[in-house]
Amino acid sequence: MRTLRLALAQTNTIVGNLDYNTYKAIEYIQEAKSMGADLVAFPEMTITGYPPEDLLFKSSFLKDNIDRLDQISKSSFGITTVVGFVDYENQNKIYNAAAIFRDGIMIGKYHKIHLPNYGVFDENRYFHAGSQYPIFNINDANIGINICEDIWYPSGPALTQSENGAEVIININASPYHIGKQNEREALLSSRSSDNKVYIAYVNLVGGQDELVFDGSSTIFDYQGKLIARGKQMEEDLIISDLDLDSLEKFRSQNTQNSNHDHTLRDIKKFTYISSGDNIHKIDKPNVITNINPKLNKLEEIYRALVTGTRDYVQKNGFEKVIIGLSGGIDSSLTTTIAVDALGKDNVLGVTMPSKYSSEGSIIDSKELAVNLGISISTIPIEPAVLAILDVLSESFANTNTGVAEENLQARIRGNILMAISNKFGYIVLTTGNKSEIAVGYTTLYGDMAGGFAVIKDVPKTLVYELSNYRNSWSLSPGVIPQNVITKPPSAELRENQTDQDTLPPYDVLDDILESYIEKELSYADIVSNGFESELVTKIIRLVDRNEYKRRQAPPGVKITRLAFGRDRRLPIVNGYSQS
Amino acid sequence: MRTLRLALAQTNTIVGNLDYNTYKAIEYIQEAKSMGADLVAFPEMTITGYPPEDLLFKSSFLKDNIDRLDQISKSSFGITTVVGFVDYENQNKIYNAAAIFRDGIMIGKYHKIHLPNYGVFDENRYFHAGSQYPIFNINDANIGINICEDIWYPSGPALTQSENGAEVIININASPYHIGKQNEREALLSSRSSDNKVYIAYVNLVGGQDELVFDGSSTIFDYQGKLIARGKQMEEDLIISDLDLDSLEKFRSQNTQNSNHDHTLRDIKKFTYISSGDNIHKIDKPNVITNINPKLNKLEEIYRALVTGTRDYVQKNGFEKVIIGLSGGIDSSLTTTIAVDALGKDNVLGVTMPSKYSSEGSIIDSKELAVNLGISISTIPIEPAVLAILDVLSESFANTNTGVAEENLQARIRGNILMAISNKFGYIVLTTGNKSEIAVGYTTLYGDMAGGFAVIKDVPKTLVYELSNYRNSWSLSPGVIPQNVITKPPSAELRENQTDQDTLPPYDVLDDILESYIEKELSYADIVSNGFESELVTKIIRLVDRNEYKRRQAPPGVKITRLAFGRDRRLPIVNGYSQS
Repeated sequence: MRTLRLALAQTNTIVGNLDYNTYKAIEYIQEAKSMGADLVAFPEMTITGYPPEDLLFKSSFLKDNIDRLDQISKSSFGITTVVGFVDYENQNKIYNAAAIFRDGIMIGKYHKIHLPNYGVFDENRYFHAGSQYPIFNINDANIGINICEDIWYPSGPALTQSENGAEVIININASPYHIGKQNEREALLSSRSSDNKVYIAYVNLVGGQDELVFDGSSTIFDYQGKLIARGKQMEEDLIISDLDLDSLEKFRSQNTQNSNHDHTLRDIKKFTYISSGDNIHKIDKPNVITNINPKLNKLEEIYRALVTGTRDYVQKNGFEKVIIGLSGGIDSSLTTTIAVDALGKDNVLGVTMPSKYSSEGSIIDSKELAVNLGISISTIPIEPAVLAILDVLSESFANTNTGVAEENLQARIRGNILMAISNKFGYIVLTTGNKSEIAVGYTTLYGDMAGGFAVIKDVPKTLVYELSNYRNSWSLSPGVIPQNVITKPPSAELRENQTDQDTLPPYDVLDDILESYIEKELSYADIVSNGFESELVTKIIRLVDRNEYKRRQAPPGVKITRLAFGRDRRLPIVNGYSQS
Repeated sequence: MRTLRLALAQTNTIVGNLDYNTYKAIEYIQEAKSMGADLVAFPEMTITGYPPEDLLFKSSFLKDNIDRLDQISKSSFGITTVVGFVDYENQNKIYNAAAIFRDGIMIGKYHKIHLPNYGVFDENRYFHAGSQYPIFNINDANIGINICEDIWYPSGPALTQSENGAEVIININASPYHIGKQNEREALLSSRSSDNKVYIAYVNLVGGQDELVFDGSSTIFDYQGKLIARGKQMEEDLIISDLDLDSLEKFRSQNTQNSNHDHTLRDIKKFTYISSGDNIHKIDKPNVITNINPKLNKLEEIYRALVTGTRDYVQKNGFEKVIIGLSGGIDSSLTTTIAVDALGKDNVLGVTMPSKYSSEGSIIDSKELAVNLGISISTIPIEPAVLAILDVLSESFANTNTGVAEENLQARIRGNILMAISNKFGYIVLTTGNKSEIAVGYTTLYGDMAGGFAVIKDVPKTLVYELSNYRNSWSLSPGVIPQNVITKPPSAELRENQTDQDTLPPYDVLDDILESYIEKELSYADIVSNGFESELVTKIIRLVDRNEYKRRQAPPGVKITRLAFGRDRRLPIVNGYSQS
């Protein structure tokens, strides 16, 4: 029987750390071999990590990546190895590539044909598009390789490769997470595999890189579009599955149809290699169980993406510990909880910095959270510092009314204190702003926006509540986040009796308008016609547009929605456009 | 005699302000008509401004831009009008386009073929490439239009259009400034026009947009590659020149050669239009003098780019006034001088914020600068505020040594004070960091980096000195920037007797290494082989790499070098790559 034992290694690479990424790959090759795998595949750009951005313009980086490819090649004895790397003819002609090795020999390589250049992707900035459609017959199994975006085109390489004999398509990916993406992927892969009567093995990167989280969730679909394997979400995994190529052959011969596609212009190359050592007919393999890991539910998935993104940003930058300003509000409470789940309670320091506007409840709630999470907490009242700065400003501020300047000053003194502790002890400051307030600019630049990583910057306020309730459900009632934090009206507490809803609509309304404008890219007219009050829509759109300058100076944070602030949404600061 | 009176209108557009840009265009059309011009051409994307970035994803924006195009069309009676706009078939198929109008009729349009997607450009993110090569015969003059990048390809549209009869190529641009770029452009345009025996009229945008400054400098080259007109640099201008088409025809007939180029696959379309009104044979035109404005010298050009970028950023964002922290050092002195030249002395407020480490000289120098420039200056000593924050931090900082945390705290209190005044009175804070210190991270995030615009962020320290001396040469010795500011050793004055050279090499050495690494993108090995000490190169490269996180939160500032920090240079923050 022709069976291919296929292994997919979803590794957590570090961009630029070629040695680490190579070591990781070799470790997984050994493990796959020990499991009797005939073939092991790694994600897109395994060696460099993804996305390496302008590191790709460094000639030494390109050379070093080829050097590491050679090291991986030497580990391919007895196991076909597919690995993502950067290929190049010269510094001005580079490719997003996959190499296929066996027994220390490079059997061939593939250059990505469809280069994504939208959303967070800038692949046209770096890569030339490939134009060849290689098919590899290795020990009697026909393999087609392609990369990420390639699989999204119905008449792309998967079609050409299948029609020219490929039985298994290895599609290697660096596909970042957003809510709902796994469903889109699986629907697509299912139809692509059944349409082409081919096994499709989709291997995805895992882990955080700056604003992106790669969620793993590698999958294998059989030639009838049935899911036969799914790896873990948000963590490293080695997925192993036996693919029955004889059945595929039989199925194809019973279901032949003439192709209407014209591939005469396509550059199809076939490569054959028969290993003198192990091959797919080998019988003394250990038994393997192929897992179809269940998909996490929506809130669990988002929560784990935030944990993963935070942990990897902190640790891959060489830090261990973080510091967070605790206001007693829900944003800082959720951020702190995520940080503890990401880094451990001993690596999280909470600081409460009450002012004269801070309610007694806020301090109590912060302390209760700290106790529940088991973290250290410092209390640093800011009033003396506020008064001292207002005093040095007294001449400049003479005869003016107290207002936003004084409110922001409090936030900035808190920023100073956190940054001072950060500088003194080497902790990263995590900021606590949510997407709704960042959208409308209800944040203080250099104040609560001061910090290295903005954990929930892509989480709308209404989702902050959902995630808090979700996290509380992990433990017996009432959960780690104090109930009072969840039920009290949100307030920045920068002036007497302030609440967010003094100047903003209720958050469910605000979030609907923001989602319409930002993620759905609806126009003013469309949003109004969806039933929102026109003055309110005008106000919100203007706030979003005018606060681009603040967002440009915001720290990075985890992308979880289809369209996050950051590289996903590139708007000018000088922007005279007005729709309403 | 066939003469085409050609006008090039280099306008200063505002991105997104379609009404303003349209008004501007119509104003210039009237002026060109009054000068008897047969044709007036405007820069790339005149209507939207450049680059509109993700505004292009808004359907209302696309529609509104077409609406303004119709308005401009109505002004084209009696004058052929070439204007840049955004064309589209649907929201997913948009083009960087030029329309050509006469007498209220659109004669045709052109879609940019070569889309730049490197450096600061992301045109593949937005546009589809055109594929047609139209030629317009209007009142007996043969016109080819193409856009910006198109002209840089020897076998691009200029060749095809010339070979198919175009006598004048109108190349419309939004080409941002960097040092030396005008020389590159003119060398290219000269050879392109002589190679194709064609007049080339190059019209460029002018003014600042976020980090970019468009420098105008529109030019016309005759069919033998001779420069016959050059517009002003860094300001609006209308360039008018009479092109002798009869001579061109004669020259071509005497210098015929067979083309070796195969354009059979190219989609060439010809359009003919004869106006019933004015035409090129009209004789009662006012005399015009075609200026070949001299090129500014290097320092003057850079200085004016900085002034233009600063003025436009401030004013296009709706601000009038700026505030600058004066340290008595050369960076803040130059920044303030640029601000005064950009906005006027009444719109610039200097604030000196001495600490216990500030030398007497620094305060004197700041005051002298303020007097020389005629600006207001406030003095706000920060010591009480520093002590107050250190006091609230005393428990947290118990038993630690004074160091970077305390140094940064001073810078951050200064940042707070400037931002408080900014918030109170609506001034933009200008930051004063230069490229050398931003490169190696010798700046304090949320401290001296706090502000809306970073005037000299792309100016290396050695060039800061050159520009200061240059600006001083405007007036009788000793000039506006006090001599002591130029001669004293640079210091951040954040601790006792500190100078920059305690921890950095001399700035001429530092700047050479930085230019090698950043602008020339040389590797560690190459830089060392150019004669720099290996340990020093290692140190500098590591500093540059590790401080990416700070630059990511920096305010925008004027790009003047070939490769600025910002959208020009996109590196990951999590970056494990090490060359040395």
